[in-house]
Parts: sequence; C-alpha cells; structure tokens
Amino acid sequence: MDAFEVVGLLAATLTTASFVPQVAHTVASRSAKDISLAWLILFGTGIALWFVYGLSTASLPIILANGVTFLLLLVIAWFKFTLPHPLPEPAKETA
Amino acid sequence: MDAFEVVGLLAATLTTASFVPQVAHTVASRSAKDISLAWLILFGTGIALWFVYGLSTASLPIILANGVTFLLLLVIAWFKFTLPHPLPEPAKETA
Repeated sequence: MDAFEVVGLLAATLTTASFVPQVAHTVASRSAKDISLAWLILFGTGIALWFVYGLSTASLPIILANGVTFLLLLVIAWFKFTLPHPLPEPAKETA
Repeated sequence: MDAFEVVGLLAATLTTASFVPQVAHTVASRSAKDISLAWLILFGTGIALWFVYGLSTASLPIILANGVTFLLLLVIAWFKFTLPHPLPEPAKETA
C-alpha cells in the first residue's frame, strides 16, 4: 500500500464514518426534515454507482467507503420515510 | 474513456449534484439542525482528502466530484454555523 492509498483509505474512513454521528443525530432527534429528499435519492444512487466504479477499478477505498455508506444511508432513509418529525409523543402509532 | 470511467463520472455527477438540492433546501428552510455537526466536519475533511487522493491517482471523476462537493458543503456549513433555526420571520430574499 503506497502513501496515496493511505490518503484514500483515510478519506474513505472519514466520509463513511461521518454518517455514524449523522445516523445517531437522526435517531436521537427523530427528525430528518432538514435533510433534502432529493439529496437522499441522488446521493444514495450515486454512492451505489461509486461502489460499482470501485469494483470495476479494484479500488479498495472506494469499495469499502461506498458499501458501508450505502448501508448507513438506508437507516437515514428509513427515518426520513417512516417517521413524522418531530414525534409529538413516544407512542409508535399516532393517528 | 472506457465504460467504467463513464460509471465513475455518473457516480461523481450524482453524488456531487445531490448537494445542489440540499443547499437549496437549507437556504429555503434556513435550518440545518437535523444535519449533524460531526457529519459536516468529518465529511468535509474526508471530501478534502478524497480530492487529494483523486489528484494523486489522476482520477478525473474523484477530482471533480470532491472539489465541487467541498464548495457546496461550505454553503451548508455557513448556514449551520451562522443562522439561528428557524428564522422567526420570512426571509427577505432567497439566494
């Protein structure tokens, strides 16, 4: 592994790891209204394509970064699509 | 340009372009509270390192995607750091 690959892996680690606190923030606040739906769709699709690009070029940082990021985006998407924001009460079902 | 590079450019276009509606959403709502500060810092740093990685590997998709994304993140960061959320009165103008 050369120095540039280390930079790539560090970049991959940071951009991917950044979604851990974002998911925690979304889960804790139970609100994702400030996160654009268009961003979620376009970014998620793009991340999936980056994953394919990583496979095609055998780039380990790109494969790992985008695979994990995609999974974390699914959590954010789940909150974006299923929860009202913010929840008025802790009940699971509100009319 | 081979087929894989086309996939990479499409991925770059989508992930980068996704931040245009996110910036528009943030500007319109004048709120970024659902966007994690830790995400902003880690993701922004990671994007800067991806840019360096792109330069080091002469990867056009990575260079373009991350350069433009970083600029768009600066706009979100400006709102995150400077504006109260949400503003109590309507905005004079949306940029």
